[in-house]
Amino acid sequence: MSEQVKISLDVMGGDNGPAVVLEGADIALIRRPDIRYVLFGDKDTIEPMLENFPRVKQASTFEHCDVMIQMDERPSQALRRGRGKSSMWNAIEATKTGASDVCVSAGNTGALMAMSKFCLRTMANIERPAIAAIWPTLRGESVVLDVGATIGADAQQLLDFALMGGAMARSLFGIERPTVGLLNIGEEDVKGLDEVKEAGRMLREFHLPHLDYKGFVEGDDLGTGAVDVVVTEGFVGNIALKTAEGTAKQLAEYLRSAMTRTWMARIGYLFARSAFVKLREKMDPNKVNGGVFLGLNGIVIKSHGGTDGEGFAAAIGLGYDMVKNGLTAKIEQDLTVYQKSRFAADEESAE
Amino acid sequence: MSEQVKISLDVMGGDNGPAVVLEGADIALIRRPDIRYVLFGDKDTIEPMLENFPRVKQASTFEHCDVMIQMDERPSQALRRGRGKSSMWNAIEATKTGASDVCVSAGNTGALMAMSKFCLRTMANIERPAIAAIWPTLRGESVVLDVGATIGADAQQLLDFALMGGAMARSLFGIERPTVGLLNIGEEDVKGLDEVKEAGRMLREFHLPHLDYKGFVEGDDLGTGAVDVVVTEGFVGNIALKTAEGTAKQLAEYLRSAMTRTWMARIGYLFARSAFVKLREKMDPNKVNGGVFLGLNGIVIKSHGGTDGEGFAAAIGLGYDMVKNGLTAKIEQDLTVYQKSRFAADEESAE
Repeated sequence: MSEQVKISLDVMGGDNGPAVVLEGADIALIRRPDIRYVLFGDKDTIEPMLENFPRVKQASTFEHCDVMIQMDERPSQALRRGRGKSSMWNAIEATKTGASDVCVSAGNTGALMAMSKFCLRTMANIERPAIAAIWPTLRGESVVLDVGATIGADAQQLLDFALMGGAMARSLFGIERPTVGLLNIGEEDVKGLDEVKEAGRMLREFHLPHLDYKGFVEGDDLGTGAVDVVVTEGFVGNIALKTAEGTAKQLAEYLRSAMTRTWMARIGYLFARSAFVKLREKMDPNKVNGGVFLGLNGIVIKSHGGTDGEGFAAAIGLGYDMVKNGLTAKIEQDLTVYQKSRFAADEESAE
Repeated sequence: MSEQVKISLDVMGGDNGPAVVLEGADIALIRRPDIRYVLFGDKDTIEPMLENFPRVKQASTFEHCDVMIQMDERPSQALRRGRGKSSMWNAIEATKTGASDVCVSAGNTGALMAMSKFCLRTMANIERPAIAAIWPTLRGESVVLDVGATIGADAQQLLDFALMGGAMARSLFGIERPTVGLLNIGEEDVKGLDEVKEAGRMLREFHLPHLDYKGFVEGDDLGTGAVDVVVTEGFVGNIALKTAEGTAKQLAEYLRSAMTRTWMARIGYLFARSAFVKLREKMDPNKVNGGVFLGLNGIVIKSHGGTDGEGFAAAIGLGYDMVKNGLTAKIEQDLTVYQKSRFAADEESAE
């Protein structure tokens, strides 16, 4: 496929401003020269900066936007103020008009989700969107969702998350039938939240061709990579994600402090330097930067607000891969198969 | 105070059997010679083993129990089969009769909680017990609760958890007015679960003399130790705890693998060996082993089932400290102050 991938960028989003976004765009373009950007931002700020990134300028169209969404703005206010006019809104809308295949923003998460829902709407038969994170594990990577799109989820919504997360794992990891687990506080069938138990029953019953349901998983199964897709509602998912990030930072700090405490340790550090560099890369949260909004009529990727150029490039790369591997088509396919299977089950029980 | 601390042990509990429990009892006794044990277990198993631990034998009374609770037994079945007869039940009941000041068990968590609730009952004005964990942080240690006693909690129950966790922090860390945070998915007042927001409003309103309420905290604040006491309901707390444990194991495995990959790294490891030993100690989950059951008429400590002698000794030490520092009295004191303050507020609003 020689087709270019069109990516719309909210150049104004993020804690560190447009420079990081443009730097990330440049890095991503070197790795994937068939990217074409549609940039949205403030003309007076962006146009002079673009001169420092000739590659990006060459591969982009630019559109001026009057409004820029603040990082601490309430979603409702952002929507009121930025609808139709902001760089964020326009970057999202581009995926709807076909001007782009995927939107990437490092802006305010709540505002990005509110605008994405309002502009793109949820897919047919999907009630709620989810944010999926890529979780580094001892086996490689897993998809974990929802990490904070909405609070609470009933059994049907958890099942929808499983289907969408499964489609994402198929797109991303190239597995035919990803393994799926429901996050719970015990592995036995009798334990945990009612909606989680009910979702487990449904997943077992429907025999979905593209999902290999493995039952309940616990918090410590996230890091080992016990399954390819971990499903939970947004409150728990968000706290699990941030707890893991916090623990990683804490241990990195322990390690740093242990390696500088004595002269012997410092000498040891010098010898093992390249090992530590590899370790730091492995623990770098930027490497897997990007939350994917699933369940909307368009793909939106949320980058960490505080990321650097490398991190933003990773988020762009993730969006690129999702498009190349036909994420949306895969989700639609899985949803259709499931709807048929559910319809058949309903027919049967009605007889 | 020259008073001895009487500790009842369920010698049969745990994955690794009585040997680990007795070894732990021995280690704890060396450190705190004023412990006296009340041991419950199977006569034929324990009595010969006690010969290997003369110190423990000397400081103990032993009582034979016919029933031993299995690690995978359902709580309801354990209660039916073990009530009045099992080593677990009797170790708990000893804190009620006054035969002991605190009970420590490495047995089945669900069964231990079910029996503790049934035997000890919840304290006046406390609806639900909680399990509090001691969380190692960059600043030292925090108390986190509930980590899995029950699923779900309303605003009043979260406030009770805050009071009990605060009393535990006062007992354990010797702080006059511990800082408290409610675990949520955003730090702004408008975000998150309704019951969490309501609990925050109540904590702010009541101006409790022994709690310094700091607002919402997020998952990544756990590792930094942003507050002394983190309050959440049991489902989220359990998943956060296990996620952190899993992440720590994952990073330890990354480190191990990085340090053995090349010869240079191995040489570096040799130089930095004592730093690594210190780091391993710091990351050792056994060091802070022990979940404290709060809100019952008696103190019960749950040790990790898979712990070793050192870990079990840590759980005993925790129980010892809780008794010496008057945990129960502190909880009762805090509850009384709160009830008065709530009563006054009710009076006021009724006028």
